[in-house]
Amino acid sequence: MKLTILGCHSATPRTNTNPTSQVLEIKNHMFLIDCGEGTQVELRRNKIKFNRIKHIFISHLHGDHYFGLIGLVSTFRLLTRETELHIYGPKGIKEIITLQLKLSDSWTNFPLIFHELTSKESELIFEDDKVKVYTIPLKHRIYTNGFLFREKENERKLDIGAVLNANIDRAYYQKLKQGADVVNEDGVLIDNISVTKDPIPPKSYAYCSDTAYNEDIIPIINNASVLYHESTFLDKNENLCERTKHSTARQAAIIAKKANVETLILGHYSTRYNGYEGFLLEASEEFDNVLLAKDGKSFDFSSLSLV
Amino acid sequence: MKLTILGCHSATPRTNTNPTSQVLEIKNHMFLIDCGEGTQVELRRNKIKFNRIKHIFISHLHGDHYFGLIGLVSTFRLLTRETELHIYGPKGIKEIITLQLKLSDSWTNFPLIFHELTSKESELIFEDDKVKVYTIPLKHRIYTNGFLFREKENERKLDIGAVLNANIDRAYYQKLKQGADVVNEDGVLIDNISVTKDPIPPKSYAYCSDTAYNEDIIPIINNASVLYHESTFLDKNENLCERTKHSTARQAAIIAKKANVETLILGHYSTRYNGYEGFLLEASEEFDNVLLAKDGKSFDFSSLSLV
Repeated sequence: MKLTILGCHSATPRTNTNPTSQVLEIKNHMFLIDCGEGTQVELRRNKIKFNRIKHIFISHLHGDHYFGLIGLVSTFRLLTRETELHIYGPKGIKEIITLQLKLSDSWTNFPLIFHELTSKESELIFEDDKVKVYTIPLKHRIYTNGFLFREKENERKLDIGAVLNANIDRAYYQKLKQGADVVNEDGVLIDNISVTKDPIPPKSYAYCSDTAYNEDIIPIINNASVLYHESTFLDKNENLCERTKHSTARQAAIIAKKANVETLILGHYSTRYNGYEGFLLEASEEFDNVLLAKDGKSFDFSSLSLV
Repeated sequence: MKLTILGCHSATPRTNTNPTSQVLEIKNHMFLIDCGEGTQVELRRNKIKFNRIKHIFISHLHGDHYFGLIGLVSTFRLLTRETELHIYGPKGIKEIITLQLKLSDSWTNFPLIFHELTSKESELIFEDDKVKVYTIPLKHRIYTNGFLFREKENERKLDIGAVLNANIDRAYYQKLKQGADVVNEDGVLIDNISVTKDPIPPKSYAYCSDTAYNEDIIPIINNASVLYHESTFLDKNENLCERTKHSTARQAAIIAKKANVETLILGHYSTRYNGYEGFLLEASEEFDNVLLAKDGKSFDFSSLSLV
């Protein structure tokens, strides 16, 4: 599982900062999360193959999270893409995209499938044999969802010595991996746990941007491997959080602690500050394992867990 | 009069090429012409003050000419702009922009005034005391206009020696500048031309992108100081012009010659070619005064005329 930050700044794109977009590589998927203006150029810069992106998750319809989407869809079209593209986002996103395709007389050659979201409860919006994606309802000025990406349980690992000792037919190995007890060659029921080892624990990634401090998300993101939580402001501007429905770095860290996540990544920085150390310092007073997002930076989740 | 090219490439933004956008400085106006994705960042890079932009002209609703508009409007809003903004473009542009403002619950604080275009004939769309702007109907896959920016006649210059000699009251000087004959202190009618000199000739700029070869535009752009004409292709790909409704560099130069313009600037290059010399070479076989647009390059019209 690997996260690449294409942009992690709030409000407007600038010559040296990009609005929000990131790519999550999980079980052979390349999930694009949010798509601020300029995302297609950042994808190129980070050498991410356009064709591998089949699912795009849009948190909300503020421009710094989606103004790059129509350009990306249009570029896919110009590149004669045929692979289907799924877009998950708030109700309205389909109208925005299709209106522009219609007026430019440029329908896509590939299937463009919208999954419009309206629920205020967390819901399962994607599932295949290895991954589940849930929404995380957030508290912002307009309807907004975070997303929880969860690997499914991996298969149990065979304890080969024990399996051979137990005289189990090879035909049952797959059942053992799936956790079942099986009957051996001698007609004895073998307890699964006596011949298998625990699988590699599945990892999960919770993306929460944009949101005010909101403890309601804690049960949803509980024990996540990695939490990306917006931290638009520092303590000294905490007074802006209520009106803008954003969080401070400290608030992000309190959520991380209460939700018992392994690692917190901060991002969605206001561009009013010089440097990022303040975010790290204030969050680290509340929670131990804090990392800073940075445009163009990648996080490998297997090495993060060693921190 | 000064033209700054923010982007002059066709189709999709890339790490080192920008889609179409340019700024024309004319008689204290800063006119933004087209607004591809990333234009707001290029405005910053070229240090053009956002507040000086009060009029935006959009040629057509293909993404490489307008996908940056909603982001720019939103940034104006975030910067608490109060100055009114006029947007000229094809019918539909108002719906695209206002739909997105509505869904993000982000109405502008400044007056946002749309001038939607539908006419297939050239029409006057802007006029003040110093400048007129006309549409140039182009031939493209969807409804498209170029724009002709024309300085009005400058005032005649007083030939001070002759004026004093002619014994004309100071109160009539402004009338003289405006070209009127006046009666002098001795009751004699003074012929304007005997006491004034010709004004600096007004300049004009014709922007024609995107378009197939189209001689219908010649009477409209005739004698323009500068013509920017798209040159998407080289001769070897001329066969693509018919389907895509684009031009070659050579065709742009033939239009320049037939319209008797002073200078031709080429742009809207297809990114299939390496380098730009081919465009210059092929156009120069048809027309003498050819320049190449380049992202970030400025053209000062007063020095251009010396070429």
